Amino acid sequence: MIIVLKRGAGEAEVQEINERLSQEGFKIHLSQGVEKIIIGAVGDRSRLKALDLEALPWVEKVVPILAPYKLVSREFQSGNTIIKIGDHEIGGEEIHVMAGPCSVESRAQIIETAHAVKEAGATFLRGGAFKPRTSPYAFQGLEEEGLKLLAEAREETGLLVITEVVDVRDVELVAHYADILQIGARNMQNFFLLKEVAKTNKPILLKRGPSATLEEWMMAAEYIMDGGNYQVMFCERGIRTFETYTRNTLDLSMVPALQSLSHLPVIVDPSHGTGRWNLVPAMTKAAVAAGADGIIVEVHPQPEKAVSDGKQSLTLANFAAMMEELAVLSQALGRPLKGARR
Amino acid sequence: MIIVLKRGAGEAEVQEINERLSQEGFKIHLSQGVEKIIIGAVGDRSRLKALDLEALPWVEKVVPILAPYKLVSREFQSGNTIIKIGDHEIGGEEIHVMAGPCSVESRAQIIETAHAVKEAGATFLRGGAFKPRTSPYAFQGLEEEGLKLLAEAREETGLLVITEVVDVRDVELVAHYADILQIGARNMQNFFLLKEVAKTNKPILLKRGPSATLEEWMMAAEYIMDGGNYQVMFCERGIRTFETYTRNTLDLSMVPALQSLSHLPVIVDPSHGTGRWNLVPAMTKAAVAAGADGIIVEVHPQPEKAVSDGKQSLTLANFAAMMEELAVLSQALGRPLKGARR
Amino acid sequence: MIIVLKRGAGEAEVQEINERLSQEGFKIHLSQGVEKIIIGAVGDRSRLKALDLEALPWVEKVVPILAPYKLVSREFQSGNTIIKIGDHEIGGEEIHVMAGPCSVESRAQIIETAHAVKEAGATFLRGGAFKPRTSPYAFQGLEEEGLKLLAEAREETGLLVITEVVDVRDVELVAHYADILQIGARNMQNFFLLKEVAKTNKPILLKRGPSATLEEWMMAAEYIMDGGNYQVMFCERGIRTFETYTRNTLDLSMVPALQSLSHLPVIVDPSHGTGRWNLVPAMTKAAVAAGADGIIVEVHPQPEKAVSDGKQSLTLANFAAMMEELAVLSQALGRPLKGARR
Amino acid sequence: MIIVLKRGAGEAEVQEINERLSQEGFKIHLSQGVEKIIIGAVGDRSRLKALDLEALPWVEKVVPILAPYKLVSREFQSGNTIIKIGDHEIGGEEIHVMAGPCSVESRAQIIETAHAVKEAGATFLRGGAFKPRTSPYAFQGLEEEGLKLLAEAREETGLLVITEVVDVRDVELVAHYADILQIGARNMQNFFLLKEVAKTNKPILLKRGPSATLEEWMMAAEYIMDGGNYQVMFCERGIRTFETYTRNTLDLSMVPALQSLSHLPVIVDPSHGTGRWNLVPAMTKAAVAAGADGIIVEVHPQPEKAVSDGKQSLTLANFAAMMEELAVLSQALGRPLKGARR
Repeated sequence: MIIVLKRGAGEAEVQEINERLSQEGFKIHLSQGVEKIIIGAVGDRSRLKALDLEALPWVEKVVPILAPYKLVSREFQSGNTIIKIGDHEIGGEEIHVMAGPCSVESRAQIIETAHAVKEAGATFLRGGAFKPRTSPYAFQGLEEEGLKLLAEAREETGLLVITEVVDVRDVELVAHYADILQIGARNMQNFFLLKEVAKTNKPILLKRGPSATLEEWMMAAEYIMDGGNYQVMFCERGIRTFETYTRNTLDLSMVPALQSLSHLPVIVDPSHGTGRWNLVPAMTKAAVAAGADGIIVEVHPQPEKAVSDGKQSLTLANFAAMMEELAVLSQALGRPLKGARR
Repeated sequence: MIIVLKRGAGEAEVQEINERLSQEGFKIHLSQGVEKIIIGAVGDRSRLKALDLEALPWVEKVVPILAPYKLVSREFQSGNTIIKIGDHEIGGEEIHVMAGPCSVESRAQIIETAHAVKEAGATFLRGGAFKPRTSPYAFQGLEEEGLKLLAEAREETGLLVITEVVDVRDVELVAHYADILQIGARNMQNFFLLKEVAKTNKPILLKRGPSATLEEWMMAAEYIMDGGNYQVMFCERGIRTFETYTRNTLDLSMVPALQSLSHLPVIVDPSHGTGRWNLVPAMTKAAVAAGADGIIVEVHPQPEKAVSDGKQSLTLANFAAMMEELAVLSQALGRPLKGARR
Repeated sequence: MIIVLKRGAGEAEVQEINERLSQEGFKIHLSQGVEKIIIGAVGDRSRLKALDLEALPWVEKVVPILAPYKLVSREFQSGNTIIKIGDHEIGGEEIHVMAGPCSVESRAQIIETAHAVKEAGATFLRGGAFKPRTSPYAFQGLEEEGLKLLAEAREETGLLVITEVVDVRDVELVAHYADILQIGARNMQNFFLLKEVAKTNKPILLKRGPSATLEEWMMAAEYIMDGGNYQVMFCERGIRTFETYTRNTLDLSMVPALQSLSHLPVIVDPSHGTGRWNLVPAMTKAAVAAGADGIIVEVHPQPEKAVSDGKQSLTLANFAAMMEELAVLSQALGRPLKGARR
Repeated sequence: MIIVLKRGAGEAEVQEINERLSQEGFKIHLSQGVEKIIIGAVGDRSRLKALDLEALPWVEKVVPILAPYKLVSREFQSGNTIIKIGDHEIGGEEIHVMAGPCSVESRAQIIETAHAVKEAGATFLRGGAFKPRTSPYAFQGLEEEGLKLLAEAREETGLLVITEVVDVRDVELVAHYADILQIGARNMQNFFLLKEVAKTNKPILLKRGPSATLEEWMMAAEYIMDGGNYQVMFCERGIRTFETYTRNTLDLSMVPALQSLSHLPVIVDPSHGTGRWNLVPAMTKAAVAAGADGIIVEVHPQPEKAVSDGKQSLTLANFAAMMEELAVLSQALGRPLKGARR
């Protein structure tokens, strides 16, 4: 930690900081610049937060040197985390595609979709059973009935199931049915929910909040790992910017950035990332070329009749066409699609 | 609702839309432009969401005409909502100041602060008992013990208590101790929490999410009102932008904007809005001049020892000095400070 | 400057940095943390830019300690800069209001507006003669004819004239007619234009770019001062954010922030800052309460017939009403309106 | 154009709008909803801007139906624009890579770089001769000397030259030396500069402004085409968002979005888009997978000694390694690298 004092700060001020830092076990290094005094402090990073030195009137700024996260960092674990689910490995050589509708709407809809995406090369079925919606007047999900339909689709197709958990009270229920628990973008900093899912033994897909920085996102993953669950995947799904043509701005640079800073797998969601189905195939290919370990994408048999997110859903035919292109691309990149027909 | 068709769309497409809209009870107006066909549809706004017309390949865009909110709008209620709490009225002529520390830390800290802010003219005591923090390694609040200390400070000073509820499982507990329940910025779209607080009979202060649009914010208030609780206040606390000098960008234009679109009171939080205590007095005055019904501000006896948010907390002396200036300003605006000594 | 090395960097790397820094005349402080090596360097800030140390593969980050601006900072000049124009002083005790249409459209329009805003208490007439527009098909301004009409309005009313210069080739021409040269938001980092206006002896109103940080804005002012013109005013006019209800997000926290960091006056433009005329009076009052030295606002005799920005223009009557409220507020703040009738 | 009236607007208001629209040659279509009156107007889009209907107090909003751009749109020209420069075609099947230093610094530097990037497969040499910098104290470019060095490098290697023009007074000079004129991000809406480059017969690479929407960017291209120069390429180089880990947020979704709306080629700049050299190879591959027609990337023999942008520059070796991977990827996508060795 570097502490820069304001002009005019003198010995008394330095003395006061010294005492505080010493009490917390920090070692001090004083540096007298031409214009300003700079104090370097070395010690236990977990004690740093206890000192709110920027509240001191003669402190200009405090610059942390060490990252605030630990367990998620590549300094903690240099090799990639590979998450094993059934006979799948996420974060390894192969690319995984998770596909399905925004919401589970009916038995017919989810079973038809599951067969089609399986046939096209997906390995996971996605679908929402609990749907927190911007409007209280909109469809809110089939709830447990939806979870059962997802489980039934898994039975029929062999696809594994990923679905979102939105309420701390439902974690156990959702974990009973799902193979991966998804934390939605709006809940990325719902720390109580993070603590609850950390108690399960299910892998977690942690979506980036629409206004979350890379560091905040990594800190949210740190919550889950600190809670004892080390099977965490990041999912980039776009951030909120001034651009309104797309629903969000898909920030693919997070893929190599996360891979440089962390050992955890990275998945990309081009459906929420763009909000427009016709941009999804291009951004899916871009995500894989950027190094993503997988894709999660919205597919619906009749997007124009979907109860939610129809605008960004691929038809079954469009999904199948995209998967063919993706298989060629993945192969060229040396990272074959796990579910591709050979 | 206006539906613009892509170039090349013809009678068959118009026919298909007509049928769908008719099934939902909409009336149709067809308008043939030089280059494009435009369809106007008039009907029940609550059925709109059931039609995801933008998913149709030959629909260019759908433009809603009516706002998606209803209960929060000034068209629903033309006069201002005035929220009565004890002998206070929020949203009326008088300005209210809610002040206190970010976190309740100890009996001594909260009682000292309460006496001082009361003396300076505050009418409500703020203080967090449950503290969801970005880092799992940071202080997480005194929990129920903190609520009891707030209640004790109310006993001693007569200040009413506002505190945040962060977990659906704690709503009843917090409502037992607090006079106003605060929904924090990160929970603005935690719709399960909104539904729970809607069931209490306590007024709700709804903070704006750091990346929430005006419309999304109003929809979150609509959730609470739709759940049966009409005592809702908006609280502008800054949005996330590219500017990093301030912690957030305090968007004071929301004050007159909300007052034009809604009948609910508007409070401003200049502490989180700026993240720097030395900017707080100027922004407090600006908020009141913009028309805010009240201010919520962080005050701490020793900001440099605060366990959280010390950088943005006023000292007791700085708060008292600010309140003197605010009293003069409020008086000139014809909206006296409720708690000011006369 | 603080240089943090990556884990694993050793003596050879430190040695290399030492040599480079020494060549540029810096003094070095080495600090060996538990996990990382940190190097402090003290020297001439103008040489810093010559060293792109972050390009070194084993440098994790470089943290500048000193601000990159000098002439604009309060450390360079502790007292406020007061800009004298005619018998007006901007940056002193009195508040100035600059008002007029977005574009000069006709003799009748500008003369009528000038008389009305003078009568209501404005001291400067604003109006654009060169209008760079988003669309090539939109009205582009009356050019020199517009400047002449502004000068004529000055003759008639005694108001001084502020107008924008947009092209390096027009600086001399505009400076011939105007009392203050305005640099528009889109040109804030048009450094060639900044250098040209620095050569004139006219005061400069420097609008903030829609995506400019506080530091970039101050650096743009530094360009003008470095070019020899010390009469610079900042003008906050809103930044681009995700919120689309308002045209921009007016960032009033910049008023106290600039006043803390710089000695230059600060003006606020609530018209571009909101894009909606009905929000302008509230934001004007807020700006003055936040400490602004003046306001620049769009006024038009018939906003609905304006060739540009009608949506954000006040009518003459609305402007007059706002000025009455502003006079009361300013008086209460101890900063009377310069142009107010007494 | 759709005009929505506020509640309470009646016949007189409709009558007034009718008259105005009729005067401009529009045809009117009235639609009486349950709650609001809606007016549809069909006519010449170039007259739209003359009517500032949103300034009318009883108009709630005006919704344009037609895009404001014309020449750049795919509706104007359905086939892709292919720009021929020498024996290169940009926008055709082949991918082009433009590479070189941020600034031309010396003869040795630019010649060494040119040979290396040519050898690795680039077809264009980039390099700045005029460098507008954030700080007045930073290196500002070699100016005409830099242009001459670029021309010399072209002589030696056969690479064509792309370089930025920043001042209207230099357009002729730069056009004399360059094969493509670059409009930098900060100048995207410098409409005077756009008009000047439109007069040359050189192809233009138009960088996206850091806070420009897709529509504003297309309107800037419209300026150039309206000025008579149809050889325009878009260049996505990142937008400014709240994320600070990367210098900008590279918005690759603009590649398929532009290709759907416009016929002009799209280039991507991953160097400015990320600001970190180690993220550049991943984002280069992602850009090509997203469908970009080319890449412009910063390469420097010794990034740590570069006078500008060293942090985001690839070394010659890193560039060569990236090009090998890119050649494989491009081949798999059916769009070979123009400059690749076979």
